[in-house]
Amino acid sequence: MSAIPDTPPSTGPIRLGATADTALRPTEGPVVRTGFWAARQQVNARVGIPQGPFLLESAGNLDDLRLAARGTVGKYRGDYPFMDSDVYKWLEAACWQLARVRPDVPEGRRLADDVERLIGLVADAQRPDGYLNTWFQAGRGEGPFTDLRWGHELYCAGHLIQAAVAHHRATGRTGLLEIARRFADHIDSVFGPVGSGKRIDGFDAHPEVETALVELYRETGERRYLELAGYFVDGHGHGLLGGEAYCQDRVPVREARTVEGHAVRQLYLLAAVADLAAETGEVELRAAGERLWSAMAATKTHLTGGVGAHHDKEEFGDPYELPTERAYCETCAAIASIQFSWRMALLTGRARYSDLIERTLFNGFLSGVSLDGERWLYINPLQVRDGHDDQGGDKSARRTAWFRCACCPPNVMRLLASLEHYLASTDDDGIQLHQYAAGTFRGETAGSPVVVSVNTEYPWDGRITVSVDESPAHVPWTLSLRIPQWCARFTVQHGQQTFDETSALVEDGWLRLTRTWQAGERVVLELDIEPRLTKADPRVDAARGCVAIERGPLVYCLEQIDHPGGGLDDLVIDTTHPLAAKHRPDLLGGITTILATGYRQNIPPQGWWPYPSGPTSNADASGAAANGRIELTAIPYYAWANRQDGAMRVWLPAV
Amino acid sequence: MSAIPDTPPSTGPIRLGATADTALRPTEGPVVRTGFWAARQQVNARVGIPQGPFLLESAGNLDDLRLAARGTVGKYRGDYPFMDSDVYKWLEAACWQLARVRPDVPEGRRLADDVERLIGLVADAQRPDGYLNTWFQAGRGEGPFTDLRWGHELYCAGHLIQAAVAHHRATGRTGLLEIARRFADHIDSVFGPVGSGKRIDGFDAHPEVETALVELYRETGERRYLELAGYFVDGHGHGLLGGEAYCQDRVPVREARTVEGHAVRQLYLLAAVADLAAETGEVELRAAGERLWSAMAATKTHLTGGVGAHHDKEEFGDPYELPTERAYCETCAAIASIQFSWRMALLTGRARYSDLIERTLFNGFLSGVSLDGERWLYINPLQVRDGHDDQGGDKSARRTAWFRCACCPPNVMRLLASLEHYLASTDDDGIQLHQYAAGTFRGETAGSPVVVSVNTEYPWDGRITVSVDESPAHVPWTLSLRIPQWCARFTVQHGQQTFDETSALVEDGWLRLTRTWQAGERVVLELDIEPRLTKADPRVDAARGCVAIERGPLVYCLEQIDHPGGGLDDLVIDTTHPLAAKHRPDLLGGITTILATGYRQNIPPQGWWPYPSGPTSNADASGAAANGRIELTAIPYYAWANRQDGAMRVWLPAV
Repeated sequence: MSAIPDTPPSTGPIRLGATADTALRPTEGPVVRTGFWAARQQVNARVGIPQGPFLLESAGNLDDLRLAARGTVGKYRGDYPFMDSDVYKWLEAACWQLARVRPDVPEGRRLADDVERLIGLVADAQRPDGYLNTWFQAGRGEGPFTDLRWGHELYCAGHLIQAAVAHHRATGRTGLLEIARRFADHIDSVFGPVGSGKRIDGFDAHPEVETALVELYRETGERRYLELAGYFVDGHGHGLLGGEAYCQDRVPVREARTVEGHAVRQLYLLAAVADLAAETGEVELRAAGERLWSAMAATKTHLTGGVGAHHDKEEFGDPYELPTERAYCETCAAIASIQFSWRMALLTGRARYSDLIERTLFNGFLSGVSLDGERWLYINPLQVRDGHDDQGGDKSARRTAWFRCACCPPNVMRLLASLEHYLASTDDDGIQLHQYAAGTFRGETAGSPVVVSVNTEYPWDGRITVSVDESPAHVPWTLSLRIPQWCARFTVQHGQQTFDETSALVEDGWLRLTRTWQAGERVVLELDIEPRLTKADPRVDAARGCVAIERGPLVYCLEQIDHPGGGLDDLVIDTTHPLAAKHRPDLLGGITTILATGYRQNIPPQGWWPYPSGPTSNADASGAAANGRIELTAIPYYAWANRQDGAMRVWLPAV
Repeated sequence: MSAIPDTPPSTGPIRLGATADTALRPTEGPVVRTGFWAARQQVNARVGIPQGPFLLESAGNLDDLRLAARGTVGKYRGDYPFMDSDVYKWLEAACWQLARVRPDVPEGRRLADDVERLIGLVADAQRPDGYLNTWFQAGRGEGPFTDLRWGHELYCAGHLIQAAVAHHRATGRTGLLEIARRFADHIDSVFGPVGSGKRIDGFDAHPEVETALVELYRETGERRYLELAGYFVDGHGHGLLGGEAYCQDRVPVREARTVEGHAVRQLYLLAAVADLAAETGEVELRAAGERLWSAMAATKTHLTGGVGAHHDKEEFGDPYELPTERAYCETCAAIASIQFSWRMALLTGRARYSDLIERTLFNGFLSGVSLDGERWLYINPLQVRDGHDDQGGDKSARRTAWFRCACCPPNVMRLLASLEHYLASTDDDGIQLHQYAAGTFRGETAGSPVVVSVNTEYPWDGRITVSVDESPAHVPWTLSLRIPQWCARFTVQHGQQTFDETSALVEDGWLRLTRTWQAGERVVLELDIEPRLTKADPRVDAARGCVAIERGPLVYCLEQIDHPGGGLDDLVIDTTHPLAAKHRPDLLGGITTILATGYRQNIPPQGWWPYPSGPTSNADASGAAANGRIELTAIPYYAWANRQDGAMRVWLPAV
């Protein structure tokens, strides 16, 4: 019996509220059954999600819930006050998965049983007043809401609410939603705006509850949750928690000029800014989202879509400070970036947001989970040196089965289990395909459904065939296809007509095809995915003198295992030699490799001091060709560290 | 009344024990009265050290001692358990300074009073059993020696012992030494080797007590302190504290292949390794010192001599991982490097150790204190970007009056107050000048004193005149002059004879002049200090495509304030244009600037994504000349951040 989804995942994140004002709307019931992402989703369904309850049991998260249920002070398990959030994120992932799997097959039953069992533990742990946080209930800390800088109670509440919304949307059951509402109501009774008579002195230093409260508003129609989200968003930046960028408390988001501080915190906050702008129409929040997204994308995002330059404080760095081996690029930050970008894509309709989503999905996000679905990366560096001194732990460049701070794995699970919902959108005038994956997508036009099917081997192949499955008769509508930012040349064929990149049909990243469609009509988009070399803005010091290999949406890297007979640190690529793509169905689950030509640099004889002065200092890449050519084999970045630990690099010194 | 030292600083760190076996020995009573370092010492004497008691009072360190003296649990002031060490480091600095100042002038009296007052507070705080640590005595933590990973008790004890040794050497008084011995004896009663019946399960995760115990052995002749130091050194690396590199507990130092973990901890430990090798003659420890120093110098040291690549955990990175803006290069790590190198220089007699000391003193160490002596840098990056988002605090690129973690300022004070002791050495056959500073240095040969005077304007001028002041009649001895690693050309003139770098008199960095010297004879060494361009080993990715400007021992940098009309991030240097040195007595206390020629790079038009692919990607430094030449003004790195906050960079992209 296959775990491949049989029923359409009809539910997903972001159901806009009744009065929301966005350019685009999420689609209902998108389905992806084959191809690249379906394979990743199957591993997630077969390996990733089913592991969850065991891992949460052994890491102590479930014991913490049981301890809280007993109502006695005791030994809290785990190092961090946000152990509960791992349970909630897993529940959210499992619920999105529940919506994809038939309840009458063994996998479906087992998953539903696990979900209900964990919900039972959560229910038992909740205090009668709605409060729920096992760290504080275990007697750690000074008590509820006394440590908003580090307590993570509202952060955990946010993940509880997100899980509850997923559970309700996926199953129609209200058990977890009632728990979440009781906690939300408790929070709403404690915090509120000036004049409400409630506490006005804080918010959680780790945003998450904000966007969750918007979703709770969407799910329940209860407007005070939206208002509470707005209160928390605007609480940031006034020094209530000490004024640190780490806590998103240095600058009000409406005034901020760039992204700063802890990357995940910043981006969860900005996802809520976009949510609020969508639901309230507030132009200042929309402008803040646009401004801060642009600052992030243009100056603080790695080639892989990864964000967060600093290990220390897990934070954004300065503009163009984008290190390679010390790129932090937390997997959760990639996910947060996707969540923020998708909300901006819906809000504005601009293609660039989905350009960044594509890049992040295929690279800096997907690298976070191993191909077998069992091991994880918390950080996603762009370089690992020869003989890297890996000390293990959460920040290791080796894949790890679980983390002390286990935020990333269930975050990956929940995104993969709901991925279809990030691929397409609709508006009153048709359907927009943001990402290319084989599947079926439903939109509408003038109240009538439109359904298209996509067939493609993307990203290995640039051909995308879109078939119209259902269309209203005599009503013209627009099929919008995103032309990726990385794509310089394409053709699109419709019937006897062929257009290319010079066509006036492309506007700001969207190819717009408007006509009265007939069921059965086909459009064939052919994106040129010849391998290419990419450079960085000259201000990205870390990539000076280097190029990266890319093909389609994929960033490539070299791994030690493919380059025996030496390390990677002394390799250079000869950019005058052509690149060749070679598909290898046998390798790493089936990948297209890129072959390039390189040399080993002339390393000066090693003295005790590595900084030569004067004319002797010219020994470097020049003349390296004398060392003889080496064939370089590049693999997609997402697939690194799946065979052997060892050196890796994305940016290649170039001659 | 001048605070310039009137009496020779006859005492200093490292008085070798009676059975020590080293190639070289420290000199007695070196004096530096004028020139570059004398000016820095005067600021230290006039501003830095006198501030100490006020700063220690306002930061709470002295209150913590008073609290401990009351013997009651109370409110400990300060964020860290090692507040006591700041007091001890200041006392050590003040005691070295006491040895330099006449006790009958007001400054001398004031300083002596301050020292005795603080010693009184320390004495009152000590428990009857000798234990002394205000954090634990204040009731923080679980109790004495229960938290060797973070308690810092032995670390603080080490600084107490170092201060006591300085006090005893400088004043002959025994008050502080008795306090230190009581604590050392207490520690010795608790910890000891297998079979001693004492605790064998630990050491301090922050080394310092080890080298201090060797000094206590030297000062008292009590061999069990030396043995206890050996016990602690060899305790590291067996997992007793959990096995982390951060705690210097992953690999026994005798087996380690490279420096790792927290840079200051590693280097304090290695200073003790060198001390033990000197006092015990253990070849395995000596080999470890040589091996680890070489690994550090060749692969983990920045051009400035700064060490420690990572902000996170303040640790060494991988070989050749030497970032620019994220160079941590803690001021304390530079000091620790100098302490380790000097011990290795004495142990082995090799010049390279003093090469690194020179580079570190003039650059990565001296940058740690402002020219006015009032403000400090904890970290010493090699680049600050345009619009750097400086969040203040200890890790700021802006100079700060004091730190929450105030380890660096008193560390600078103690090194400057004892600096003469790092400049020259003696052996049975004469005197070795390791560093060039105007002053008088005493050595010996066959039991007779030899005294030489140095006159020089170094580092601004390369001429060093050495005069023999005192020499035994008819006994030949050797004057050894270090030819710096950076110096490719020199001449040395003695009477009618002139030698240069081709002379056979130079061996492994030492110019050896052996003869029967007469008082009044002069040797004139002329080092070529033409400004030069330096590159990095090609594996130093952070410096790819860049050069640094150097002159003599000084590393140079560009600062924003000297380059109006734009930022620094888009500047490139034209390496085909000559460099010109220009002395500016008016600027930054008198410096030689270097003028170079550069351009502004062609920055591609900013889109939302900073990674262009394909042929459009070639816009960079090539063709930048079309933008018009700009004169670049470089200042010595040590003098940066003394006029204005703003961008700075050492490594300059080159065309």
